Amino acid sequence: MAENTYTVQGMTCGHCVSSVTEEVSEVTGVRQVDVDLATGRLTVVSDVDVPAADIRAAVEEAGYQLVG
Amino acid sequence: MAENTYTVQGMTCGHCVSSVTEEVSEVTGVRQVDVDLATGRLTVVSDVDVPAADIRAAVEEAGYQLVG
Repeated sequence: MAENTYTVQGMTCGHCVSSVTEEVSEVTGVRQVDVDLATGRLTVVSDVDVPAADIRAAVEEAGYQLVG
Repeated sequence: MAENTYTVQGMTCGHCVSSVTEEVSEVTGVRQVDVDLATGRLTVVSDVDVPAADIRAAVEEAGYQLVG
């Protein structure tokens, strides 16, 4: 199992959190997703290391950006 | 036809606008709904005057409040 954290910018409400959670949860290999609205912190638990590009793509699909 | 405007507080993003639009659109008699995120302005076009209490209830169902 691997746990990686990212920072999402642009989320303003619980709907935004739900959108990010939903999209990232659909990435292959992802087991658990936690999003903190106040900090933008996105924690992803996966079977193996999921490519950061896949997480970035999912966040952008939801309509937001990763910091960095 | 009647047109009434209200002010919604608490909306922060497009998802919020969608939620309010959806709930208010389901109120009996409502024909058209327009929500402006920046100002919170909610414009409701209806066949006849819809009770303000019905609009308020729909907005609250979506998770927001009417001003006033």
